[in-house]
Parts: sequence; structure tokens; C-alpha cells
Amino acid sequence: MNEHRYTLTLSCPDRVGIVAAVSGFVAQHGGFIVEASYHTDQETQRFFMRQEIRANSLPFDAAELRARFAPLAEQFRMSWQVSDSAVKKRVVLLVSKQDHCLNDLLHRWRSGELEVEIPCVISNHEDLRSFVEWHGIPFHCVAMPNNNEQSKTAAFAEIARQFDASRGDVMVLARFMQIVPPDLCTRYAGRLINIHHSFLPSFAGAKPYHQAYHRGVKLIGATCHYVSDELDAGPIIEQDTMRIDHGDTVEDMVRYGKDIEKAVLARGLRYHVEDRVLICGNKTIVFR
Amino acid sequence: MNEHRYTLTLSCPDRVGIVAAVSGFVAQHGGFIVEASYHTDQETQRFFMRQEIRANSLPFDAAELRARFAPLAEQFRMSWQVSDSAVKKRVVLLVSKQDHCLNDLLHRWRSGELEVEIPCVISNHEDLRSFVEWHGIPFHCVAMPNNNEQSKTAAFAEIARQFDASRGDVMVLARFMQIVPPDLCTRYAGRLINIHHSFLPSFAGAKPYHQAYHRGVKLIGATCHYVSDELDAGPIIEQDTMRIDHGDTVEDMVRYGKDIEKAVLARGLRYHVEDRVLICGNKTIVFR
Amino acid sequence: MNEHRYTLTLSCPDRVGIVAAVSGFVAQHGGFIVEASYHTDQETQRFFMRQEIRANSLPFDAAELRARFAPLAEQFRMSWQVSDSAVKKRVVLLVSKQDHCLNDLLHRWRSGELEVEIPCVISNHEDLRSFVEWHGIPFHCVAMPNNNEQSKTAAFAEIARQFDASRGDVMVLARFMQIVPPDLCTRYAGRLINIHHSFLPSFAGAKPYHQAYHRGVKLIGATCHYVSDELDAGPIIEQDTMRIDHGDTVEDMVRYGKDIEKAVLARGLRYHVEDRVLICGNKTIVFR
Amino acid sequence: MNEHRYTLTLSCPDRVGIVAAVSGFVAQHGGFIVEASYHTDQETQRFFMRQEIRANSLPFDAAELRARFAPLAEQFRMSWQVSDSAVKKRVVLLVSKQDHCLNDLLHRWRSGELEVEIPCVISNHEDLRSFVEWHGIPFHCVAMPNNNEQSKTAAFAEIARQFDASRGDVMVLARFMQIVPPDLCTRYAGRLINIHHSFLPSFAGAKPYHQAYHRGVKLIGATCHYVSDELDAGPIIEQDTMRIDHGDTVEDMVRYGKDIEKAVLARGLRYHVEDRVLICGNKTIVFR
Repeated sequence: MNEHRYTLTLSCPDRVGIVAAVSGFVAQHGGFIVEASYHTDQETQRFFMRQEIRANSLPFDAAELRARFAPLAEQFRMSWQVSDSAVKKRVVLLVSKQDHCLNDLLHRWRSGELEVEIPCVISNHEDLRSFVEWHGIPFHCVAMPNNNEQSKTAAFAEIARQFDASRGDVMVLARFMQIVPPDLCTRYAGRLINIHHSFLPSFAGAKPYHQAYHRGVKLIGATCHYVSDELDAGPIIEQDTMRIDHGDTVEDMVRYGKDIEKAVLARGLRYHVEDRVLICGNKTIVFR
Repeated sequence: MNEHRYTLTLSCPDRVGIVAAVSGFVAQHGGFIVEASYHTDQETQRFFMRQEIRANSLPFDAAELRARFAPLAEQFRMSWQVSDSAVKKRVVLLVSKQDHCLNDLLHRWRSGELEVEIPCVISNHEDLRSFVEWHGIPFHCVAMPNNNEQSKTAAFAEIARQFDASRGDVMVLARFMQIVPPDLCTRYAGRLINIHHSFLPSFAGAKPYHQAYHRGVKLIGATCHYVSDELDAGPIIEQDTMRIDHGDTVEDMVRYGKDIEKAVLARGLRYHVEDRVLICGNKTIVFR
Repeated sequence: MNEHRYTLTLSCPDRVGIVAAVSGFVAQHGGFIVEASYHTDQETQRFFMRQEIRANSLPFDAAELRARFAPLAEQFRMSWQVSDSAVKKRVVLLVSKQDHCLNDLLHRWRSGELEVEIPCVISNHEDLRSFVEWHGIPFHCVAMPNNNEQSKTAAFAEIARQFDASRGDVMVLARFMQIVPPDLCTRYAGRLINIHHSFLPSFAGAKPYHQAYHRGVKLIGATCHYVSDELDAGPIIEQDTMRIDHGDTVEDMVRYGKDIEKAVLARGLRYHVEDRVLICGNKTIVFR
Repeated sequence: MNEHRYTLTLSCPDRVGIVAAVSGFVAQHGGFIVEASYHTDQETQRFFMRQEIRANSLPFDAAELRARFAPLAEQFRMSWQVSDSAVKKRVVLLVSKQDHCLNDLLHRWRSGELEVEIPCVISNHEDLRSFVEWHGIPFHCVAMPNNNEQSKTAAFAEIARQFDASRGDVMVLARFMQIVPPDLCTRYAGRLINIHHSFLPSFAGAKPYHQAYHRGVKLIGATCHYVSDELDAGPIIEQDTMRIDHGDTVEDMVRYGKDIEKAVLARGLRYHVEDRVLICGNKTIVFR
């Protein structure tokens, strides 16, 4: 898990010979491919690819790899990037008062399971300061007054400023109970991850467990997705469900639901930071 | 499984002493309770109960049991019924051309797993006649011309006539690709079961797998529900989901989906014929 | 969830009239039964029962309830107990260095989801002291030298002493990597809960993920069980599995497995502290 | 699904450049790769690969593809094969009296979901003749007298003769309740598939549901595996589990278990006939 690797991800119009060209390029420099995945989207005929290469099998570093790969990428008209496992992604967590996702992610981080930097945690409440600071992570409280749109705009501007200041790669709404304004959704497209407590597209919006209770469904779920400017409608990264029955109250669903929420968010975030998620329109390709 | 039993199901306004009164009544006649389940709906404060009683532990038959229980039921203002395992439910199956649910249900029937009578199978196509008749079950074809509302009305009237003529207890839409008219939905409320190929309320209506594909969900599902006059919105009996990924086409989903559809329908139908499902508004209590 | 309730659990030889007698007794005092479950074990013909009664529906307290119930219990030769939701169970946690189960249980405790007292955490290492103490919970380190049976015996005697001193109701081996001596297993029978990182009975003993890897199974699992004097062979409370594939290394299994381990232990422990688990020989009845 | 494709599967010692060489070879002839999967086994450092190539993208047929690929295979010391989707695998089914797997597989076959030939069904009982023959498939009954080893040997010799005579590619023990003699296991290694009604390695051998019941497990399972000369110990292709509880009798487990057995066998067999399963020692790589 801790081996030094480069991860190449790319997409381009599909045609014969892409895999041959890319793996030929890698092989020509002695590169050892540890993991490789491909997919062609049927609707757009676009090809997607991910390769993990053992860093010490190549005679040069990531910058040189990028420089040498660029002409080939140009030739196939690729969108592409090379990430370096030695450079950890910087993940900023946003929370309100509920802390089950925060507790789960911080544990994965401090146990070394989730290999990221967490430059700070931002909240609209003070409640979780002590727990976050015990981890040695800065905690910023940005008040988010209800029913005051002007203050909310200012608060989100402050959140964006802090995210940028901490050179964040991805912002995670870990049960942050506020709706992100459309301009930030656009600005951080593909870098803003939310966990919604229903199996979308069912029960978008507020109080999904209440909605589920009233509809009488036999399973509840959770959805990890990129935030877009349409509420709970962005590209889905990961989902899961669990069985309930008629005896379960809304409170029971809330309690059980926490376990799916944190598991789904943890998986979705891991796929993202390991560059396993490629966005294709409003869908995702997840190379697990 | 084949022991002779009476199943008492009831609902009434909740209050102290219902269980004591009912189980006292049963015990007083030496009745041996094999299985018992209770539930109080929080919103309506209505109490629901199901008890299976060993028939030969009682000194009288089902008719006498009903007669003796009536006063107590009256006292608690119960909706109630006693069913007798020796009297099998009569299940009429409706199919079109897809036969995975039919094949599954007929196998469960002929192997003795599903203890019902199947007086006939009705279809709007001839395709499945030979397979049904191999089982010794009458097959009725009722043509269902597209784009002709008058003929459709006549066809459904004929279906209802055949259902009634075969003294059907429950009609199962086993992937019957036609929308049942509202008057029949009302007439057979609680006796008309459908399998929908999505995890409702997501993707109601036509082509749910196409809808699922375009939304990019990571799980597909199926829902067994009672039919109401609102399309795909009746009380849900059973649901399940399974994992798919970006590599799965609509055709793959259709194929995988068949396995959930038949499993969910088989479970839902079994719960119904074993009197395990009690309807409470637009929700169900399922005493598994 | 926080309503004041009494929970009556009992078992006795099966016969006609037990439910009627017990629910008659409860009803006679105006007791409101919130939840009720029954089971008869086919092999032993022993009857098991659990009832939750709303405390304020009874005109007396738990002690009086016990006193009044005793004659009826005597008559049916019941093993029985009444627990009071106002008296929280005292749970002592034992850990080594791995903290995923500890982190999960402490979060459930501090969020109020798991309604217990945690008088102390005991470990054979110092590593988790700071995290436990942040919660305001005493942390006791009891060294457990390898290859020194005499010291081990003394260490376990010290653990038992601390458990008794903290008036523990149940001891949880939350990935405590030491084998409890047989005399303690016997002494705390039914009060000593372990989480084993395999789907028992497969892969009992050491390094279950290595065993699973070498056998090439396609699912891994976890088992929460009462500890008996035979290793990993006590009554099973809860289990679950998850899918892996050929690409997963032992390290991957260890990582994925943590998520099942903590979920299975949390469920199993909750069933125990809510008096939902009744032991029948080497099996459990779990009234969920 | 019905597109004409060649599937190349291979394994060889791992080294740099295998993917580049193979995909270069395919690209050089204009071959369009539809699906590609790779894996390196950590213990043996052996590389495994599967590629599906669109047949009409190549300027030659399968025979020519094999001839041209052979030198490259030689160079990398590959075990390899090219299969042609136009040449369907020939699957011989063995059954006793239980027909849930047979019913499921025949339905998948007649609906076109499982694209194979079924030259015949062989049984040691006459019970299923009519059902099989309704499908137009020859049914051979080979008596298998209990307690007569000599007759059993003769019976298995007859089964092998019929399998060979029908040019079978794979023999499926679809709940065939007889133990295949070691010499046949060896002779048909990798071509003999069994469904066992437990989550192996738990409960190998006879009456696994009885074993599960007595151990008090909370999940039951099924395992599809290649038969080896050690009973229920061959390479596992696919497994699954489902939840049961204390209320379920052995008969309930048998009934629920049928649903997992048929699902697991159907998936395992599909992986096999689509050349998705590569054997590595006593484990499998399954390129789903």
C-alpha cells in the first residue's frame, strides 16, 4: 500500500491502439504496471484508462514522466494527469454537529488507512472543536446564520478562502447541513464531495429518512456524490443500502443510516483520492 | 411446514390488554401458538397482530374458531380474519413474453415450496402456452391490442371475469407489461401484486433500467408491491438491490435485474399467501 | 429510545398458556407491552420470551414487578430476569493496539447511540491511553508478557479484579489479541463477548485473513460471539460477510475486514445490552 | 452480448512489457479490444490476462489469430488459449432428484441468457426426464446403486463415456448427490464444476445445513468450485451468503439455500463459459 507509485489517468475518443500506445510507452522506459483498468463509454464513445506504475521501475521522476508522456497525449487528444503517491491529497472536511462521518474519517486517517493530509476541519458550530484538535488538526468555526442569505454568502466565501489557503485538493461535506451556493459548486466541480442520506435519486433534499418512512420502503441507503449546482443530482461515486422493516421508526433509520453513510463516504472518498474516479458527463467511472 | 395450522391476523386501536385477551382466548381452548408477531403503528396508534395456532391443539374447526372469536373481536373493534392452511390460496398469474418470474414461481409451486393453487395463467401473448400447459395448468390468452383503449378495457374485463371464475384469491403481475385500469386496482385492492424492476420510488414507470443507466446509479433494484390506482405507488411488500458498475450496459442490468425481480416477487408473494402482510394506509407490516 | 422501560426475558419448558399467563399478568396491572418476541427451540422444546413494558404504565417499580412475577415464574419453572432501562449496563472494554472497534464503540457511546456505562478500558499496551482518557474514561494498562504463562495468569487475575471492582456487567474483547484462560471463560460465561475476524466456524484461531487468503474464498467475514472455554467456538451472536476478489491481498482483507468487525461487534453488543440475546446450549436466540 | 468476439486468456511469469507486447500485437492487426483484465499473483509472481477482441476488427479468423500469436506466447512462456464466441461451450448437466439448479440453468439457456449448448442431461434417477425432454434435450439415466462400489465405478465410467461422446467442454454437478471418483476428478480437472450448499470451508461434506443449524451460524451460504480429488476442497469460483435467524429450522435453511445455490452456480458457470476464470494453484482469478 505504501509502495511509491505514479497513477496515470486519462480519457480520449475511443479508437484502435490506445492501450498498445500507452503500455508501449511505459514498457519502453522499463515501467512496471501494477494495476490497469479500461472502459469505453457507449454513449459518447469515449475511452477511459487508469494505470498504476511502480515509481522505482522508471528511470525518471513524475515531472519527467509528464513531460515525456505529453506528446503521446496530444496525439490521442487525451485529458490526462499523472499523480504521485508521495504527494498526498489535501482533504478539507466540513461538518455541522453530527460527527459519525468525521469520527470515521479521522480514525481512518490517524490509523494510516486513509493516506491523505487533513489541513483543517471547518464547521458552522463549535461542538466538535475539542475532538478535532485532539488530533492536532486545526479547527475553524465559520458561523452560518439561518435566514440570512447575505451572511451565508459571506460565510461560504470565508470557507472557500480557507480551503484555498490550505491548498485543499478536495472538500468533503461530511454531513455538513448547509447547501453550497452554485458558484462554489461550479468553481470546485469534481473536487466537492457530499454524502447524502438516501439511495438517490429517491428522497433528494431535506429529511430523507422521514421521506423513506412515509413511503414505506424496505431498504434505506446512502449516496456519495460530487456536488453540482442541482441539489443532490451530481455524479454518483458510491451507494449502498441496508434492510429495515416496519418496526423501525425514523429514529431507528437515522441510527442505522449512520453506519451506511460513513461506510459509503469512506469508500467514495478513498476512490477519489486514489484517482479511481473519472467523471463522464453526469456519471462516474470508478476503477476499483 | 405442512403441519395443519390456523393463522389469525388482526388490527385494532392500540390499548392495554389486547395480547392478554387474545392469547388468553387461545389458551383457554388449549390452543398451541406456534408463531406470534405484534406491531403498533406510531402514526395511527393502530395495533397489528398475527398468530399461527396448531390446528389439532384446538377442540374445534376453523369455522367454530371464527364463531367463538367474533365477540372478542367485536369488543376490541378488530379487523380480523382466520385462515386455514388446509385451504390453499388460489393464485392467478399474468404474464406477457418475459418468463423469468413465471419460470421461478412455477418451479416453486411444482416443488412444493410455494403451497398454493394456480388455477390458471393469463397472458396477452401465446408464447408461454406450451411451458404452462406442460405443468397441467390452463393457459388463457387474452389479446391486448396496442393503441386501442376500447379493446384494452374489454381485455381487462375478460381477465377479471376469468380471475373471478377461477375463484382467485390473488392476481400476480409477473412481468405483465400492461397497466391495470384504476377500477380493477380498486376492486382488487390488496389482492393485486406487481413486481416493478426498480428500487421504488426511484424510476417508476416505463424503462426503469434505462432510467437507472442514465442516472448512473451504483445499485439496481426491484420492488414487489400491491397495485393501487397510482402507477407504481402502492404499498411496498418487499425490495432488494444489487451492485452494478460503470461497465454494465442497460442489457447487463436487464439480465442481472431478472435475478432480483424473481427473488423479490417470490418472497413478496410468499409473505402474502402466508398472511404475513398487513396493510396500514400506504405501507405494509410484514411479519416475517 | 429513551423511554423508561422494563425488559422481561425468560425461558422455560414449552407448554400451552405461557404467553397468556405472562401477558395476562402484565395486563392485570395495566402494563403496556411495547415489544414482544417468542421462540421455541425445536430440539430442547424450551420456550424463550422477551417483553418490553412501558415503566410508567405499571403502578409499581422494578423491584415490585420482580416480586409479583416470581410466583408465576415458579409455576412455569422459568429462568428469568427483569432489567430496567434506567439502570445502564456497565461495559468494560479490552483492547490491544488495534483501535478500530474501540473508536467505533466509544463514538456510539459518546453520541448516545449505545446507552451503557463504560467504567474503564483495559489494555496490555499504553498506545490508546490518550484517546480513551480524552473521553474521560479511566484507562488501565495491564502488561501481558509473551511466553510467560505465570505472568499471563497474574495479568488476567488483575483484569478480573478490575472488572469486578468496576462492577462490570459485560467484558468486551474489542480486538484484544490474547486468549482468555478457561477459568475466566467459565466464571464470566454469557458476559464475555469477543469479535473474531472470520466467518466462523471457518478460520478459527490465529491469522484468519491469512487462512482466508490461502483458501481463496470470495467473501470474508466477522463473528461476534460469547467466549467459551473452547477457542472461537462459543455461542454466535452476530455475523456478516463482504465480497472480496482475487486482486485483494491479505493487507486489503485486513483493511476491509475492520469495517465488518466493528459493525458486527457493535450490533452484537447492542443486542446483548438490550437483553435481546438468550443463550440456548451453544446457540443464541436474538430477538431483534 | 451477441457480438462476435475472440477471447484471449493467458498466464506467464510476470515481467515488464507483457501488456505492451500483447496489446501491440493486437493493435498491429487493427484489433479492437472490448474488455481487458490483468492480475499478478503475489505468491507465484505469475501474471494473468484476459482480453476480448471484436472479431470483425481483425483481418483473419480465430485459427489464424492463434497461429500468429503463438511465437509471442512462446517468447513469454505463456499458457494461453483463444476462444471464439461463435463456438459455444458444450455443458453437460448432472442431477439427482432436486431440480432447482437444473430449472434455473435450463431457463437461462432457453431464454438465451446463458449462451451454451447442452448436449444432454445425465441423472441417476428418472424423475426429471419429462421436464428435460420438454426442452428437446436428451436425458440419460445412469443408475447409481447405493452400497455397491463396483456398480458405482461402472456408472461413473458410463457417465464419462457419455460426456466424451457428447464432446462436452464442462460437466456441472447441479446438485448431483454422488461423490465423483478421484480418477475422474483428475481427468476432468478444471472442467468439472460443483455447487456445494455451504460457505466453504465451513461445513464441507454431507448435510451442511444440518451442520450449520447445530453450530448456530447467523448466515448460510453456497460455494461454486472446481472439483478436485479432495472433497469440497477444490478452487472456489464463486460464493455468497444470506442471513437467517434462530427461528429458521433446517427445512427453512434448505428452502432459502436453494436460492443462493442456484444464483451462485449460475454466476460461477457463466464466468467459466465466458473464460473469465483462470486457475492458479488451488485458487481462482475471476475476471468479472
